[in-house]
Amino acid sequence: MAIGEEVSNKQIILKNYVTGFPKETDMELVSSSIKLKVPEGSKAVLVKNLYLSCDPFMRPRMSKPETESYIAGYTPGSVITGFGVSKVVDSGYPDLKEGDLVWGMTGWEEFSLISMPETLRKITFTDVPLSYYTGILGMPGLTAYAGLFELCSPKKGENVYVSAASGAVGQLVGQFAKSIGCYVVGSAGSKEKVELLKTKFGFDEAFNYKEENDLVAALKRCFPQGIDIYFENVGGPMLDAVLLNMREKGRIAVCGLISQYNREKPEGVFNLFCLISKRIRMEGLLVFDHWHLYPQFVENISKSIIEGKIVYVEDIVEGLESAPSALIGLFSGRNVGKQVVLLARE
Amino acid sequence: MAIGEEVSNKQIILKNYVTGFPKETDMELVSSSIKLKVPEGSKAVLVKNLYLSCDPFMRPRMSKPETESYIAGYTPGSVITGFGVSKVVDSGYPDLKEGDLVWGMTGWEEFSLISMPETLRKITFTDVPLSYYTGILGMPGLTAYAGLFELCSPKKGENVYVSAASGAVGQLVGQFAKSIGCYVVGSAGSKEKVELLKTKFGFDEAFNYKEENDLVAALKRCFPQGIDIYFENVGGPMLDAVLLNMREKGRIAVCGLISQYNREKPEGVFNLFCLISKRIRMEGLLVFDHWHLYPQFVENISKSIIEGKIVYVEDIVEGLESAPSALIGLFSGRNVGKQVVLLARE
Ligand SMILES: NC(=O)c1ccc[n+]([C@@H]2O[C@H](COP(=O)([O-])OP(=O)(O)OC[C@H]3O[C@@H](n4cnc5c(N)ncnc54)[C@H](OP(=O)(O)O)[C@@H]3O)[C@@H](O)[C@H]2O)c1
Ligand SMILES: NC(=O)c1ccc[n+]([C@@H]2O[C@H](COP(=O)([O-])OP(=O)(O)OC[C@H]3O[C@@H](n4cnc5c(N)ncnc54)[C@H](OP(=O)(O)O)[C@@H]3O)[C@@H](O)[C@H]2O)c1
Repeated sequence: MAIGEEVSNKQIILKNYVTGFPKETDMELVSSSIKLKVPEGSKAVLVKNLYLSCDPFMRPRMSKPETESYIAGYTPGSVITGFGVSKVVDSGYPDLKEGDLVWGMTGWEEFSLISMPETLRKITFTDVPLSYYTGILGMPGLTAYAGLFELCSPKKGENVYVSAASGAVGQLVGQFAKSIGCYVVGSAGSKEKVELLKTKFGFDEAFNYKEENDLVAALKRCFPQGIDIYFENVGGPMLDAVLLNMREKGRIAVCGLISQYNREKPEGVFNLFCLISKRIRMEGLLVFDHWHLYPQFVENISKSIIEGKIVYVEDIVEGLESAPSALIGLFSGRNVGKQVVLLARE
Repeated sequence: MAIGEEVSNKQIILKNYVTGFPKETDMELVSSSIKLKVPEGSKAVLVKNLYLSCDPFMRPRMSKPETESYIAGYTPGSVITGFGVSKVVDSGYPDLKEGDLVWGMTGWEEFSLISMPETLRKITFTDVPLSYYTGILGMPGLTAYAGLFELCSPKKGENVYVSAASGAVGQLVGQFAKSIGCYVVGSAGSKEKVELLKTKFGFDEAFNYKEENDLVAALKRCFPQGIDIYFENVGGPMLDAVLLNMREKGRIAVCGLISQYNREKPEGVFNLFCLISKRIRMEGLLVFDHWHLYPQFVENISKSIIEGKIVYVEDIVEGLESAPSALIGLFSGRNVGKQVVLLARE
């Protein structure tokens, strides 16, 4: 591989807009070619993609756009985009040079020409797995951090509940909350995940929501005194059950509603009267509002990782051809920890 | 009427727990008698009730208690209680004496023996109608004030929407928001009320929600740029329509959900995904949290009333026997402005 060379470039494209649960066949592996050189005079950057991130928000981008969204949808026939870790092959952008490692929005393909290189972040700290920049040191990490600390102002001794707790975001929310002395309970969709929560991530309690036929009772059991902070990842009936179990002056960070992403029409939420009787505050979170916290965040968390104060579980599949099934696996809970696709080690 | 005299005391009692819409026959006028004297050694206060307040939160108190609530329910066979303006007849409480005017929780009866006189507030400013202490200078006034200013932090030029806008709380929210330079739209359930909003209360726009078959479109028409602040009084489909019309970083004060109070099962709310995409904050309000603001509030608002900077519309019916129908009228929107029952002028 040399600069200027024309090489083949495998890509994952969206075949059609998706309705309902996404299927592998909604995406397609195609082969094109790419010249390993930034066009003359352009400030673009040409990168080799090393790790791709599978994130739940990619699902709404696959739907036919109906209402305006905070993020553009995918176009059928075009390559899927998402977060990833990449290595610069050629650069027209003064701040980046060949060999630099970066993370940010890239394409689901072997090589990408990135026309807005200012959106990439240079990776300087490399004493951790590079894939961490799709997770704990990337977008999900900052999501967990901002959602918990900025939106919920947790205090020592408060009761924190996290849904989808073993996932990319959830495992961090729980550990962050424990680190400041909260009582933390998480839920997840398998026995294995529940074990992880209790042993690896140090949650005080955990339960498999799929095995509870009364979510209200399950939460009551784990939180006899009620919930102060709910980190909402799933939505739907779980939110209703949580509302009934919240304490006065409770806070809910609405991070994601993954149980609703594949539905044609969302499920209703019925217990909003609890907001009044318990003066609950519920606030939507978008990590994009909080990028200014990233430099400080990455410094602190890198330190905690090195010191072993925080752990991170990833679920890594190999090869671009595995990416579609890894992505759709998020919606059946097949991933254990942060779902990553490894394309190349460097 | 002399202290110590035994007099007849008409009362309104709850006959049975209410399900669905309350009916006049759920309450009953009975006659008992009362001695106009505080029992020896008691710190209670005996008052003559002048004005009774009809408030929506009295409806949930009529239901059979199922979940714990922030306020105790009524007991069938017992007198209805609620806010009112009263005159002290006899007092065992050092801070109150015969002839003092007070407002606070009292009974739906001619005379009440109030065993917790510390919950009463002495009325010192009497240059306004005394009935105002059930409304603008009472609980609904502070509700409007705290909900708007404490929960929503309105800024000049922001777009504010109020539902049930001509009512006890709503008419004040609109005027408060106008006073600091917001663009204000209200909705109400009749042509007459919509006229009031636009002419008397100075709302920029108003609409009759009963005549709109598409609430989303109605709000879009009134708020082409979207809503920054929603003062929520009604709930249900209106909340869903508002969510779609909110702007980024919008705030919703959840004050009441009157459209749900008579339902066996609440309606679902479907558009909570907007909380995330628009980073909306939604927060429940209970006026009881904000009593510490009352002294300052009453001082400022009294001044505004005297200076004609704020107006207040009341709907006053006469006689205790009219109280049940006045109360249930809240749920069909029969009241135009704050619903008050006049028992005696002094
Ligand atoms: N607002 C933001 O800026 C932002 C940023 C990042 C992520 N998010 C949101 O945060 C949430 C978690 O994201 P993540 O990256 O950490 O994903 P993740 O948890 O690593 O993976 C998704 C997990 O969701 C669970 N799940 C899937 N379908 C579900 C359903 N119907 N009901 C309940 N749980 C279900 C599955 O775990 P189980 O086995 O436990 O079911 C699955 O493993 C998502 O809602 C995502 O959209 C938001
Ligand atoms: N959280 C607190 O501390 C607190 C304190 C006071 C009041 N509140 C709440 O604030 C809200 C307004 O109270 P208020 O005292 O000012 O009452 P109000 O507005 O004076 O009277 C109630 C009004 O609600 C409207 N309404 C009735 N049923 C409705 C329905 N199904 N859909 C839409 N609107 C309906 C009617 O007006 P239309 O003709 O416009 O339909 C009716 O006139 C209530 O929800 C109440 O519970 C809360």
